[in-house]
Amino acid sequence: MKIGKSTVPRTAISTSDEHSITVRGEDLCRDLIGRMSFTDYFSFLVTGVRPTPADAKVLDATLVAIAEHGMVPSVQASRMTYAAAPDALQGAVAAGILGCGSVILGASETAGRLFHEIDEAAGTTGDLRAAVRTAVKRWRDAGQPIPGYGHPLHKERDPRVARLFEVAKEAGASLRFVEIAELVEAVIPEIVGKDLRLNVSAAIPAVLLGTNFPLRALRGVPILARTAGLIAHLAEEAVTASGFALSYQATRELVYEGEPAKGAPQ
Amino acid sequence: MKIGKSTVPRTAISTSDEHSITVRGEDLCRDLIGRMSFTDYFSFLVTGVRPTPADAKVLDATLVAIAEHGMVPSVQASRMTYAAAPDALQGAVAAGILGCGSVILGASETAGRLFHEIDEAAGTTGDLRAAVRTAVKRWRDAGQPIPGYGHPLHKERDPRVARLFEVAKEAGASLRFVEIAELVEAVIPEIVGKDLRLNVSAAIPAVLLGTNFPLRALRGVPILARTAGLIAHLAEEAVTASGFALSYQATRELVYEGEPAKGAPQ
Amino acid sequence: MKIGKSTVPRTAISTSDEHSITVRGEDLCRDLIGRMSFTDYFSFLVTGVRPTPADAKVLDATLVAIAEHGMVPSVQASRMTYAAAPDALQGAVAAGILGCGSVILGASETAGRLFHEIDEAAGTTGDLRAAVRTAVKRWRDAGQPIPGYGHPLHKERDPRVARLFEVAKEAGASLRFVEIAELVEAVIPEIVGKDLRLNVSAAIPAVLLGTNFPLRALRGVPILARTAGLIAHLAEEAVTASGFALSYQATRELVYEGEPAKGAPQ
Amino acid sequence: MKIGKSTVPRTAISTSDEHSITVRGEDLCRDLIGRMSFTDYFSFLVTGVRPTPADAKVLDATLVAIAEHGMVPSVQASRMTYAAAPDALQGAVAAGILGCGSVILGASETAGRLFHEIDEAAGTTGDLRAAVRTAVKRWRDAGQPIPGYGHPLHKERDPRVARLFEVAKEAGASLRFVEIAELVEAVIPEIVGKDLRLNVSAAIPAVLLGTNFPLRALRGVPILARTAGLIAHLAEEAVTASGFALSYQATRELVYEGEPAKGAPQ
Repeated sequence: MKIGKSTVPRTAISTSDEHSITVRGEDLCRDLIGRMSFTDYFSFLVTGVRPTPADAKVLDATLVAIAEHGMVPSVQASRMTYAAAPDALQGAVAAGILGCGSVILGASETAGRLFHEIDEAAGTTGDLRAAVRTAVKRWRDAGQPIPGYGHPLHKERDPRVARLFEVAKEAGASLRFVEIAELVEAVIPEIVGKDLRLNVSAAIPAVLLGTNFPLRALRGVPILARTAGLIAHLAEEAVTASGFALSYQATRELVYEGEPAKGAPQ
Repeated sequence: MKIGKSTVPRTAISTSDEHSITVRGEDLCRDLIGRMSFTDYFSFLVTGVRPTPADAKVLDATLVAIAEHGMVPSVQASRMTYAAAPDALQGAVAAGILGCGSVILGASETAGRLFHEIDEAAGTTGDLRAAVRTAVKRWRDAGQPIPGYGHPLHKERDPRVARLFEVAKEAGASLRFVEIAELVEAVIPEIVGKDLRLNVSAAIPAVLLGTNFPLRALRGVPILARTAGLIAHLAEEAVTASGFALSYQATRELVYEGEPAKGAPQ
Repeated sequence: MKIGKSTVPRTAISTSDEHSITVRGEDLCRDLIGRMSFTDYFSFLVTGVRPTPADAKVLDATLVAIAEHGMVPSVQASRMTYAAAPDALQGAVAAGILGCGSVILGASETAGRLFHEIDEAAGTTGDLRAAVRTAVKRWRDAGQPIPGYGHPLHKERDPRVARLFEVAKEAGASLRFVEIAELVEAVIPEIVGKDLRLNVSAAIPAVLLGTNFPLRALRGVPILARTAGLIAHLAEEAVTASGFALSYQATRELVYEGEPAKGAPQ
Repeated sequence: MKIGKSTVPRTAISTSDEHSITVRGEDLCRDLIGRMSFTDYFSFLVTGVRPTPADAKVLDATLVAIAEHGMVPSVQASRMTYAAAPDALQGAVAAGILGCGSVILGASETAGRLFHEIDEAAGTTGDLRAAVRTAVKRWRDAGQPIPGYGHPLHKERDPRVARLFEVAKEAGASLRFVEIAELVEAVIPEIVGKDLRLNVSAAIPAVLLGTNFPLRALRGVPILARTAGLIAHLAEEAVTASGFALSYQATRELVYEGEPAKGAPQ
């Protein structure tokens, strides 16, 4: 069945023959394996261009920042899945990744879109502060939360934020989007009526958009990072089982709000 | 409901409070972000110990080697899923990861178990060659394929194998498991009756088991690596749609082997 | 970590003790197993109320209509995943379900929202035709496709549509939303500029919203139905392997648009 | 890339053209929609043959029996995933299905294989009791748990077991595998050394294998059933959020067993 316009698949990422594998115009075995870090390679796969040292330094910092934050819901889901299906590690990783959605880890990309919109608007008017105010008001009026601000645990600024901004500065990346992210933080109390501080999901696009990493692949950063964290948790789960203990604890105070069975002894 | 023995979940990976995040006994913001590559951090998350330069070099090489090999089945599944559900990037990545199973990418771990078994057996007898022969025969007699040997495209040795072995040597990693992997290759023609050469799935454990990377986390290596490749493919799919074109091509020669509908015009 | 307002989980669906399982106020073993079809039970689980015969007849018809349509992309993704990871049937089913997204099978729910919006608007003004026109225009102006109209294969009306409408009529369900669905079809050529006919994804909410099945669970209908189809395909795949053949065919005309490897022989 | 022997995909399940859809040799719109229940259709899709009334009655009973058992781990994983990614219902369903693995819901198929093995062995010797004893001993000696016996909550026989056996009897299905299942239960105390009673995962194959439902599709039964339960839970989660409350409760007694951060205030 033909769906959509194109009937011929195309890719510019990779091709191979019996004796060689070409990736983005380089010979994988001769030029890439052993000559490039995995972070550089991720950037190269996504963009087709070797990252600069600043690109790589900032990308490494964001991946390290977001890979692991303890027994968060997606890690719990992954460990419970592994406990129930230990033969299929890939299934438990997949279950954890499925929790990288709009509410939790997807905020990085959405915050990136907000910052990009502000940057474009300011580019024409020159007034960054006004562009920030206009965009935040528009998102707020459309009923959308401002992505990447506020955190259930880190009520003051998430400690990862300052560190990521420092790394971006040290690396010599553009700080344009860091400035935008901080201006957004500054106008939130007035427009949203709450004092919501920058969290790591806004800090990631703030630093990455100042490098050559593209907006459209932003959502991939927390997904790749969390995959590393999930694998570590599942390697631990295989030795120290916590998946079923988590599910037991989770329901200790569970309230059944339905009716008792009809005709059951009262 | 209580399943299993433990009712209290435990983890040694990470904890946090309002102002700090501790990972494996280090302060994430102060000691890790911007001071460690993502590859080092993956190793640190899994093992709890900072990798040596050799550990990191070999791990980087394996992740780069296995991340991308073009439009393989799991990439196709992922791109088709994204075409059908473009709002949920995490779902398309998960669909791709679900194809890292026993037949395709899970072979790394299984090959690692075979090599480990040989190493342990030879440790007691001292005769590595005999241990190889015994183990390959036992796997063969049990009806199990020898994991990590033979490749549908790379009939001679997969070109990634030699390069990974080179990197391991340059890095100064132990070559014990490389030796085992090559001895297995040498006995396969006689025992299996086919000339199956080392592929990347055997080369990965061959080099990683010569570092401090643990056997029990081996299966995570192709999963993490492929996640990077999948994100690149999905970033491309968002711009150059191939998912539905792949599914169209896939069925051009599809044979319907069932009955025609009863009473249908012939 | 506390996320959101509630810290106590609640459910009205089910509870159990050592000797009994209560579902929606009925004793599962005494009152439900062997006394209710699976379709009735699905409706009962979702709504908390036993379906009427008309509810059940229409729900059965929609589930049968959407369960299977051959080697569509999500079935291909599922069969490729199973070929690569045959030990984990649940992973292959999950991969197929992940393709039930906004573009393909999610359209049922979106069409339901459109019809519901029209129904509510007309309820106040009394003019159904005007409400249809206004709603379709508003969706169109917002750049949204009209969900559930047009089909890549069934250019005239999808044959399942007429049959579902017949069943709803025979069952004595309300035909209010069938009327709305047909009015939407009638105004599309004028407003959208193309003659897009009702497909099964619009017919499903058109008939179900005329029963007691709730709008908010609509998206579950194609997901449940397709799960049945996927299980049949995977049972077939276990005997007649097609997963890798699909992936082979899919790439026979694949175009590599990237550069050749630098320094490679031309 | 060609993997495996076949290069041409084949299916006997379904084909279609612009005007009709054929499923298993029947016209979907003319012969199946509105004329067959979803349970019948599931059986028909899997086997290619219309189920007998006894087949359908037993299959309905097993699907109703296993669809829902409250906030079990896979439901928790699904609700947490939905809380984090509410835009992708399919992802939350997939996360729940990924927990239908070897430990929890996959036991139905494994128990079916055990019963089938016993049936075949007894067929030749005629002594069912001896065949049971031999098979249970062999599984036990191979270090495999006896699948489908024992339950964390229902210490005496799971109440669903008796009801399923009653339904099978009332429906006139063969009770051969019910007899086998009860004989296995009888020998377990002596061979395993624990009094493990039949649970629903053994009762499902015990009744289904006495109908025309095939062994090789057994694992699909709990997957399809649980999908219905998951959809009900997610429809509830959309209104009464419990996903994050579950994850909060789950970690209230979490123990961090790692080191404190070096240099942190004690």
